Amino acid sequence: MEMNFEQMQIFLKEHFPQGDQYGELLELGNGTSTMRLPVDDQHLRPGGTVSGPAMMGLADVAVYAALLSRIGPVSLAVTTNLNINFLRKPSADADILAKAQMLKVGKRLGVGEVYILSDGDDEPVAHATMTYSIPVPEKR
Amino acid sequence: MEMNFEQMQIFLKEHFPQGDQYGELLELGNGTSTMRLPVDDQHLRPGGTVSGPAMMGLADVAVYAALLSRIGPVSLAVTTNLNINFLRKPSADADILAKAQMLKVGKRLGVGEVYILSDGDDEPVAHATMTYSIPVPEKR
Amino acid sequence: MEMNFEQMQIFLKEHFPQGDQYGELLELGNGTSTMRLPVDDQHLRPGGTVSGPAMMGLADVAVYAALLSRIGPVSLAVTTNLNINFLRKPSADADILAKAQMLKVGKRLGVGEVYILSDGDDEPVAHATMTYSIPVPEKR
Amino acid sequence: MEMNFEQMQIFLKEHFPQGDQYGELLELGNGTSTMRLPVDDQHLRPGGTVSGPAMMGLADVAVYAALLSRIGPVSLAVTTNLNINFLRKPSADADILAKAQMLKVGKRLGVGEVYILSDGDDEPVAHATMTYSIPVPEKR
Repeated sequence: MEMNFEQMQIFLKEHFPQGDQYGELLELGNGTSTMRLPVDDQHLRPGGTVSGPAMMGLADVAVYAALLSRIGPVSLAVTTNLNINFLRKPSADADILAKAQMLKVGKRLGVGEVYILSDGDDEPVAHATMTYSIPVPEKR
Repeated sequence: MEMNFEQMQIFLKEHFPQGDQYGELLELGNGTSTMRLPVDDQHLRPGGTVSGPAMMGLADVAVYAALLSRIGPVSLAVTTNLNINFLRKPSADADILAKAQMLKVGKRLGVGEVYILSDGDDEPVAHATMTYSIPVPEKR
Repeated sequence: MEMNFEQMQIFLKEHFPQGDQYGELLELGNGTSTMRLPVDDQHLRPGGTVSGPAMMGLADVAVYAALLSRIGPVSLAVTTNLNINFLRKPSADADILAKAQMLKVGKRLGVGEVYILSDGDDEPVAHATMTYSIPVPEKR
Repeated sequence: MEMNFEQMQIFLKEHFPQGDQYGELLELGNGTSTMRLPVDDQHLRPGGTVSGPAMMGLADVAVYAALLSRIGPVSLAVTTNLNINFLRKPSADADILAKAQMLKVGKRLGVGEVYILSDGDDEPVAHATMTYSIPVPEKR
C-alpha cells in the first residue's frame, strides 16, 4: 500500500475542504475503501430519498481513495467515466455506505467499482463503475 | 408538449426545494431542455474545477425536464442509469450549461442524452446519457 | 430458482440457434451463472485479441441466464443498457469465462454485473453491468 | 484530416480481415464516420432482431474510424469503455447504419458517440458512447 488509513484521512481532508459532504473514511485496504455519508437534509430529495448526486459524489471519492491506496497521493488523477445503476430506494434514516475496489490499476488508467448501501441493509441501493486517468509523472 | 416553460419552472421549484444548487431552466422544447448552473464556491473542487457531482446533478435535472416536457408532471419518474464521460476541465469562471434531448420516450422507460458546456465555449466539458423509469399509472 | 441447469441449457440452445458462438453454460445458481467461450479464429482480432463484440455477447448471455434463473424462461426480456470496461488484453490461447450475478431483480427491471476472465487467470479482462427490461405478464 | 475515405477503407480491410461482419464505410469526415451493416441471418436473433453484439461491433468500428480520421492510422488504439442504450427493436429487413462523431480527441484518450439506425427510419435503435485509449508514440 502506498498510503495508510491516517495518511488518506489527512489527504482527503486537505483536498475536499468543503469536507463532510463527501463522506468519512471508514476503512482502507490495498485497492479497497469503505466510506460513510451521514444522511441529513442536504442530501435528501423530496420523498425522503438520498439524492443521486450525493451517492455519485460518495462513490467517486470512495474509488479515488481505493486508487490512491495503490498509487499514492496523486492529487491530479481525474475521473473520466462514471456509470451508475440506481437499484433500490435508499432508506431516509440510515447512513449511506460505499464499498469500493479497484478492478485495474494501470500506468495511465485506473478502473474501480463501488457498491452503495443503506447502513444495516445487505442489498445495494446503487452500483457504479468508474475510470480515473492517472497523470504521467514529469521527467526531470 | 405536456408542460410549458412556466409550468416546468414551477414544478422544478416545488420538487427541488434546496433549489438553485440544481440550476435554472433556460429553455424547454418538446423533449429538449437547457439549464444553467451558476458557478460558485459550493460547486468548485480544489484546482478550480466544477465538481463532478455538480455536473451530474445538473445533467440529471436537465434530462428530467426534457422527459417531463413529453409525459407531463410525473414526479415519481426515477433515474435508473447514468453514464457520464468527463471530457475537458470546465472553466472556473463560467457558468455551466446543460443541453438535453430525449432519445426515446416509451411507456416504461425514457432515455436521454445531455451535453455539458462552459458558457461561452463550444466544446462540451462532459456528455451523459440517462435512463428514467416511468411509473405505470394506477388503475382505478 | 425458477430454472435449473438442464432447463437453462435447453432454453439457451433453443433461443440461440447460431449456438456456440455465444458460449456454453458451466454453472447456474440462484441469480448467478458462469459461461465459457471457446476461443477460436472467429473471435480473434488482429494481434491475437479476443474481439470486444465476442466478449460483449458472452457477457450479455451470462447475465441473461442469471436473470432467468430468478424469473423463469421469459424469452422476451431485452437488454436496455450495457456498460463494459475493457481492463486487460485477453490471452489468445485461453478460453474466456464470464461470471455473472444479479444486483437487482425487480418486476420491471433486472440489473446484473459480470466479470470476464481468461481461463486460468484471476485478474478480469473486462467487467460489465447490464439492465434487462422484463415484460409485464399479460392479463387473461 | 489525417486519413481520407480511400485510406480508411484500405486500413479497415487490412485490420478486420474477417471483414464485412463489421460493416462497410459509407462516409468519413474530420472526426465523423458513417458505416452500414447489411443485415443477414448471421446477425439476427430469434424474433428477427439484429443482435446486440452485431450493433456493438458496428458502433465500435464506426467510432474507431471517426477517431482515426483525426489521429491517423494508429492501429493500437483500444476501446476501454463502451456504454450502449438499446432504444427500439431494429427492423429485420433493413440494413443497420452507424453515425459516429468524436466528442473529444486528446493525447491519451478519445471519446465518441454513435447513433445506430435502421436504414430508412429516423429514430435511433441504439445510442452508444465509447472511450479509446491512444498509445503514446515511442521516443526514438
